Amino acid sequence: MKEGRVFLVGAGPGDPDLLTLKACRLLQAAEAVVYDRLVSAAILDLVPRGATRIDAGKQPHHHPVPQDEINETLIRLARAGRTVVRLKGGDPFLFGRGGEEACALAAAGIRFEVVPGVTSAQACAANLVLPLTHRDLSQGVHYITGHCRAGAELAFDWDGLAEPRTTLVVYMGLANIGKIAGRLIAHGRDPATPVLAVSRGTLPDERHIISTLANIGTDVRRTVLASPTLFIVGDVVRLAQKPGTFEHVLPEEQLATAY
Amino acid sequence: MKEGRVFLVGAGPGDPDLLTLKACRLLQAAEAVVYDRLVSAAILDLVPRGATRIDAGKQPHHHPVPQDEINETLIRLARAGRTVVRLKGGDPFLFGRGGEEACALAAAGIRFEVVPGVTSAQACAANLVLPLTHRDLSQGVHYITGHCRAGAELAFDWDGLAEPRTTLVVYMGLANIGKIAGRLIAHGRDPATPVLAVSRGTLPDERHIISTLANIGTDVRRTVLASPTLFIVGDVVRLAQKPGTFEHVLPEEQLATAY
Repeated sequence: MKEGRVFLVGAGPGDPDLLTLKACRLLQAAEAVVYDRLVSAAILDLVPRGATRIDAGKQPHHHPVPQDEINETLIRLARAGRTVVRLKGGDPFLFGRGGEEACALAAAGIRFEVVPGVTSAQACAANLVLPLTHRDLSQGVHYITGHCRAGAELAFDWDGLAEPRTTLVVYMGLANIGKIAGRLIAHGRDPATPVLAVSRGTLPDERHIISTLANIGTDVRRTVLASPTLFIVGDVVRLAQKPGTFEHVLPEEQLATAY
Repeated sequence: MKEGRVFLVGAGPGDPDLLTLKACRLLQAAEAVVYDRLVSAAILDLVPRGATRIDAGKQPHHHPVPQDEINETLIRLARAGRTVVRLKGGDPFLFGRGGEEACALAAAGIRFEVVPGVTSAQACAANLVLPLTHRDLSQGVHYITGHCRAGAELAFDWDGLAEPRTTLVVYMGLANIGKIAGRLIAHGRDPATPVLAVSRGTLPDERHIISTLANIGTDVRRTVLASPTLFIVGDVVRLAQKPGTFEHVLPEEQLATAY
């Protein structure tokens, strides 16, 4: 029997055109694919007909499959000699629990490899012509997740996140963005700081709103955005182009000043 | 004459296999390519023979081409009706001055589009099995550049960067990593925090060293790493696999504790 192996592959933001060449080739050669809720149907279309497909995002009663069970599935398939692609939305090592899967595979002695993917923040920024860093406006970018373990509090270094010259990106922040914005303001970030919300970025039903730190909580509730939604906070948001496509909340004169 | 247009395309970290499908297709259809110093030869091999190639990283006397001149070249080529690919290492909107190029193109009324690329940090992390975020070790990742304008001081929110639960990534930090590490320690980050330096990540001559915040400045000078070098600072570095390939500076027992 040939030796099985696992590829932990970043599927990128959703648009199949943003897959890497390597990810595309591995998908086309996969014998089994274990995929997440966030992986788009257009990408799954690349998987060969004969391959086993396992949806790790759904179970009979709509509960997500527990992490331990996903790890065991990967190990079982590899031990059966299969070439397995574990397909994760975005990049496997940015908020994807890919580290835990790699750890489990290493502990089980399974051969594996990790393939990076374009992360949602970069794809949304490119799409909207919004540079994440900019010599005059932002000297760095900080990615956090707005999702926390059940029952846990959001515990961040709020002073650090309130720093005005850093672009802050919040993944999976739909439920908590109002709270996060409130804490940032309490720790000194300007309430007028622009915030861009991108719902289902790069997918056909992509939507965005532009708001401010003071209003984003209310605006997101009022607009009813679909998951996943990404938030970009910082002065670079003023550079975002295609303003015609935005559901404006920020006054026109505050937009596109540099363009 | 057909209308010219410009694609600002992220070339990813160097390995052509990590190009996106879209970047690959655009390169193969380009009539003119304007590329940076950091774009690898293997990627330029995809450009058709008949296409104009302009090296924006080099001039007769080895000075980089000034940004204004690059902008003017892009505008001139597009006005001549060409399909232009502006190829930038990594992602165009992460420390790439892509924002300035987009701004100049918009001001000149040129049609353009931005295509994201896998950024070096994610590619190096995937390669070395080093999750940038991890539930137990790091709740976010912060990218900064260690390169500053000629004569300028490094001006960061050092307290924010010293936060122990955030993975810090320093792009282009080779010249200043010793200074940066010193400031982080002065602002409270543990001197024993592991630091990974990756030189020419994903390229055939990739090299890495693992050190600590206290020693990285000295170790980098002693090892003589080639540009570009990326630094990853934080507890997740302890998870990095393939320790056999590292030039160790950190004691063995502090490595790979989770694997």
